[in-house]
Amino acid sequence: MASFYGQNIKISIFGQSHSDAIGVVVDGLSAGFKIDFDQLRAFMLRRAPGRNEYSTKRREEDALEFLSGLDNGVACGAPLCAVIRNSDTRSADYDKLRNIPRPGHADYTAHIKYGGHNDIRGGGHFSGRLTAPLCVAGGICLQMLARQGIEIAAHIQSIADIEDVAFDPVIISAKDLRAAKTAEFPVISAESGMKMRQAIENARRDGDSLGGVIECAAIGLPAGLGEPMFDGVENRVAQIVFGIPAVKGIEFGNGFISARLRGSENNDAFYVEDGAVKTRTNNHGGVLGGITSGMPVIFRAAIKPTPSIALEQESVNLPEMADAKLTISGRHDPCIVPRAVPCIEAAAAIAIADMMIREL
Amino acid sequence: MASFYGQNIKISIFGQSHSDAIGVVVDGLSAGFKIDFDQLRAFMLRRAPGRNEYSTKRREEDALEFLSGLDNGVACGAPLCAVIRNSDTRSADYDKLRNIPRPGHADYTAHIKYGGHNDIRGGGHFSGRLTAPLCVAGGICLQMLARQGIEIAAHIQSIADIEDVAFDPVIISAKDLRAAKTAEFPVISAESGMKMRQAIENARRDGDSLGGVIECAAIGLPAGLGEPMFDGVENRVAQIVFGIPAVKGIEFGNGFISARLRGSENNDAFYVEDGAVKTRTNNHGGVLGGITSGMPVIFRAAIKPTPSIALEQESVNLPEMADAKLTISGRHDPCIVPRAVPCIEAAAAIAIADMMIREL
Amino acid sequence: MASFYGQNIKISIFGQSHSDAIGVVVDGLSAGFKIDFDQLRAFMLRRAPGRNEYSTKRREEDALEFLSGLDNGVACGAPLCAVIRNSDTRSADYDKLRNIPRPGHADYTAHIKYGGHNDIRGGGHFSGRLTAPLCVAGGICLQMLARQGIEIAAHIQSIADIEDVAFDPVIISAKDLRAAKTAEFPVISAESGMKMRQAIENARRDGDSLGGVIECAAIGLPAGLGEPMFDGVENRVAQIVFGIPAVKGIEFGNGFISARLRGSENNDAFYVEDGAVKTRTNNHGGVLGGITSGMPVIFRAAIKPTPSIALEQESVNLPEMADAKLTISGRHDPCIVPRAVPCIEAAAAIAIADMMIREL
Amino acid sequence: MASFYGQNIKISIFGQSHSDAIGVVVDGLSAGFKIDFDQLRAFMLRRAPGRNEYSTKRREEDALEFLSGLDNGVACGAPLCAVIRNSDTRSADYDKLRNIPRPGHADYTAHIKYGGHNDIRGGGHFSGRLTAPLCVAGGICLQMLARQGIEIAAHIQSIADIEDVAFDPVIISAKDLRAAKTAEFPVISAESGMKMRQAIENARRDGDSLGGVIECAAIGLPAGLGEPMFDGVENRVAQIVFGIPAVKGIEFGNGFISARLRGSENNDAFYVEDGAVKTRTNNHGGVLGGITSGMPVIFRAAIKPTPSIALEQESVNLPEMADAKLTISGRHDPCIVPRAVPCIEAAAAIAIADMMIREL
Repeated sequence: MASFYGQNIKISIFGQSHSDAIGVVVDGLSAGFKIDFDQLRAFMLRRAPGRNEYSTKRREEDALEFLSGLDNGVACGAPLCAVIRNSDTRSADYDKLRNIPRPGHADYTAHIKYGGHNDIRGGGHFSGRLTAPLCVAGGICLQMLARQGIEIAAHIQSIADIEDVAFDPVIISAKDLRAAKTAEFPVISAESGMKMRQAIENARRDGDSLGGVIECAAIGLPAGLGEPMFDGVENRVAQIVFGIPAVKGIEFGNGFISARLRGSENNDAFYVEDGAVKTRTNNHGGVLGGITSGMPVIFRAAIKPTPSIALEQESVNLPEMADAKLTISGRHDPCIVPRAVPCIEAAAAIAIADMMIREL
Repeated sequence: MASFYGQNIKISIFGQSHSDAIGVVVDGLSAGFKIDFDQLRAFMLRRAPGRNEYSTKRREEDALEFLSGLDNGVACGAPLCAVIRNSDTRSADYDKLRNIPRPGHADYTAHIKYGGHNDIRGGGHFSGRLTAPLCVAGGICLQMLARQGIEIAAHIQSIADIEDVAFDPVIISAKDLRAAKTAEFPVISAESGMKMRQAIENARRDGDSLGGVIECAAIGLPAGLGEPMFDGVENRVAQIVFGIPAVKGIEFGNGFISARLRGSENNDAFYVEDGAVKTRTNNHGGVLGGITSGMPVIFRAAIKPTPSIALEQESVNLPEMADAKLTISGRHDPCIVPRAVPCIEAAAAIAIADMMIREL
Repeated sequence: MASFYGQNIKISIFGQSHSDAIGVVVDGLSAGFKIDFDQLRAFMLRRAPGRNEYSTKRREEDALEFLSGLDNGVACGAPLCAVIRNSDTRSADYDKLRNIPRPGHADYTAHIKYGGHNDIRGGGHFSGRLTAPLCVAGGICLQMLARQGIEIAAHIQSIADIEDVAFDPVIISAKDLRAAKTAEFPVISAESGMKMRQAIENARRDGDSLGGVIECAAIGLPAGLGEPMFDGVENRVAQIVFGIPAVKGIEFGNGFISARLRGSENNDAFYVEDGAVKTRTNNHGGVLGGITSGMPVIFRAAIKPTPSIALEQESVNLPEMADAKLTISGRHDPCIVPRAVPCIEAAAAIAIADMMIREL
Repeated sequence: MASFYGQNIKISIFGQSHSDAIGVVVDGLSAGFKIDFDQLRAFMLRRAPGRNEYSTKRREEDALEFLSGLDNGVACGAPLCAVIRNSDTRSADYDKLRNIPRPGHADYTAHIKYGGHNDIRGGGHFSGRLTAPLCVAGGICLQMLARQGIEIAAHIQSIADIEDVAFDPVIISAKDLRAAKTAEFPVISAESGMKMRQAIENARRDGDSLGGVIECAAIGLPAGLGEPMFDGVENRVAQIVFGIPAVKGIEFGNGFISARLRGSENNDAFYVEDGAVKTRTNNHGGVLGGITSGMPVIFRAAIKPTPSIALEQESVNLPEMADAKLTISGRHDPCIVPRAVPCIEAAAAIAIADMMIREL
């Protein structure tokens, strides 16, 4: 494994779905930084399971315990370690999976990589649950960035073929971003949200699942962040975002659409406004040559449908090396996209804070 | 800058479009490995400029000079350095760009990041020309991988709205991959290729440019490669691929399409064939949980249209901080997608060789 | 901070002397590896405080809790996290130190670096207590190495001017190494040990402290380990060993003595024995050009005298920026050298396991 | 190999003693920085071979060629690549060494590591010649640091048993440092220098060689540099210094001497002078807890005697796996210590600049 990320703000994520605890070490936080724990808890709640009809029935306190890194609640320069106990685990659900890997999951690839020693319970280290410590680290970074005037928010851009309205890449405001963050269901258009929920509920009734796209924006970034060729903004954000289970694609600005445009359509004209250089459009998604332009950074991540479905599936029995049928019981989100929204924000915040640290 | 990449095979790319030379250091090649220089030269030719109607008129020998790392043509364990002299440079073309940044290029962001000291000539370190040393490193890695039975090839999936047929993600063969590599125009369907060339020529006549999508496949990879969460196959490939100028998106397997599917449609059923576990479909693109499954690894990268176009564009005069018009003269590809194909292969090869090194 | 180390086996150490807990994340352990917990506990006991007359009176259970990384006690490929609760802490002892830094400690430099926000209690993250998680990680690596036939052990080479006999760098055996590890007081010559203990007791009575030199040997290493120029054995071992508080020097083989010799005296003659190339002497300490030769790896680390002494010292009052006197109360080792012995072994084991992982 | 170093200023060294060229890539130099080429040339001359009686007779222009990274002689933000051609190479001298490794050299360990494919000519990548590109990178860093008021200089502390006077660790001045740098023979006491030269000449006549100790000081560093536990000043400086061939030990401040002292002798009392906190002595060598204190940073490196000696030595014939006699012909420094002095300065400068970059 290599659950380490970062150069200036270094994180190290540990835990399995059913180990005693999961957690994260965060090294490099600015000494003197005071974490707003209420805000962090509220942020964590956005990805917490069991809150509503479209998420897994597993409920956990997800009570954060800070083992180190703070002195009287203030970052003291030492690495911070936060852990979350795993309480409500039903390991028995997963016993048969040791032999029959679930399609779409990492059961098989982990089995090969770790010689059959991988912790199969709940998906082990590959579980979506490991995004909780990512959100702890990211939630803290979001706060650090906010105090520098940098806001990051994401919303569901689409679920199946239902589209939300997109962020306006040019005039998006901190208010818009906060609205996305405080929505009970993280969309801009309430109507789209209603349709998405219905589609999720339909999939659930069918024993099936749905995927979607998440759009994320960061505003207030100074121009000049990013270290090309291989540590530019896109490189670094992509590296961490692909660490979130189920992400299968990422695009910045116009992304795959830009491949269909002409240069005259895709180029963003520069102009001067209020003594600052801006672009009239933001097809570049705030990044040119790997470096921030000062315009909002916009990216989208594709989330595949939850591989755990109730329908019977074809798989193999590994000890017998024979074809087998598999029906997965247990509790599963029919669509993880809503809960993945804060995870995407967290990942972006860590990547950006890591690049920003000289300024922070 | 951070033009360094890799953990086991480390590369360091240097040079500007109009510096004396560009090049790459490659550290970690297997000692005893004999580079096939003819094959490498042939590979380099695929990205070389000036070969045909759709690429820039700049012609260079792109003669590779190996300064170190070889003993009688065999890798000796010491870092290899290869350089390419910059001969045919017309720096005068770029003089006005120091003041007026080209839309869609890194001129403005580099100006801010480097306090106006960036080398503006030909785009400096941001030039597509810097993919030549990437291709040197990647071309060598491709050879190393080939001797392990691993083949990597890419083709143009689309230019504007013209689609090539896709690789078959399940039964793609080494023969298919080699066909893609030896095609004069890197497509599978000659008919699509004809249409693409025509579209490029049309764009050129209009003083405009086109983008496209490149699809890349790697076959023969063992199951079990990749170090999740943050050094998995997708994380590492994405990090390097975004180092290629103009890449704005990347997706693995079904990618953004998977976001529109149900789990029952997107999951790939496992089965046993000839004593090996395979999947009947390959929507996962050969990677589950960041780890290779043994199925072909498939990804696509979105390339934006060349920002350099002949049409007049809006920009700003930086010293005057005032709006300005810009018409770019000089030589430019109306579409870099064909030449980017080997660059994508090279990037994938470096990332995979870096992960494979324990086996190599 | 940057309490991260390693490329293949990555460790991340967290905690302060008086935080809720201290601990370590270890990523990259071989899946399937079964930790011998009794052996690990025995190893940890060698550095535990409060065991005898020459160490601090602070007693702690140092009960290890494994939060993750194991499935039924076997390494499962996921990052392992081990924590140790801090129970017996008397923070009141340290209150005045916030204003008056202790000479020889990191109080002042941490105060400057972290803007006064550093956790001063017990030395915070700079405390020798942070070597406990290092020993957890190192203790596990020692076991992994031992199963490959690699043994590492250290002993006190000197305390003040009392010398122990040195390891024989050529014919040192696993038995010799185990003897050093199981000695109650980690020396080879019991007589030297008696004198050292007496010297420590004398220093304690005087309210003063002593330093010393630790010699460490690793046998069974294959020739060919180490990646010059900057990740050779010496580079990597030195980097981690200087992470142990109070280490002020390190030397390999003849080290500083070699600077006084002629080449004809210092060069080690090669010869063939039992079909293997060996050296008749081992002045090179098992490393030539940063790469292991197959001979025992030998190094020594200099440990400065414990800076915490009972005698009144000159310091400054930071808020007042005025000279001040300081008398340190609390519990302190008059000599940490005996307890640093397993820490040195642990550090060496981590560095070597990190380099060995391809073989493990 | 892993001839890469650095996090903010990244260097990549390439070349073999007898390859076409040797060189270095330096990534992360401050854009706008103007290199003083005369000063750099003068610095390089201090390590150049063939200048006087005590160094190898190999003469080379060591003409630096800058391939990239500059625009009109000013650092432009892109990676800088500098190369030095290898002109005066007599490869025939080394033919027999392919079979019979030289004692004390890396011939044997490289043979094992690289499966016999290592470039044996002149020691290949292990040659002291590879310190030339290190000095290029370091010479530039020295200039960058000097403009921040940071001066680094080294001198020969001892050769065999002849001692130079040491730097005064408390009151050493920039003037003292410059004197050391401009001395024809890099010592403080001209008398000691005379004796050292005589000793070297005697060793040369005997067909033998000598080692020595180099002391290095850095003044003007702000307090607060260094990232403990594993990227502190000592860790990082040690990692790079052990990349210089023949270094077998390093110590900071009192180093190994501190192991013989009591805490009351070794602790440095703080006091306030001119509104700044200082220490009355500097036994800590300017580093406490891995972080600079603002006092001069002082370290010493042990250099073993040149392994190449004219006397007949015992070795082995590798293809025959039999004992063999070896007499080394060719040109060799009887003592590399004088030429290693600027290399130590260069290494220290790179490590410090890498840590300083936030400030630079």
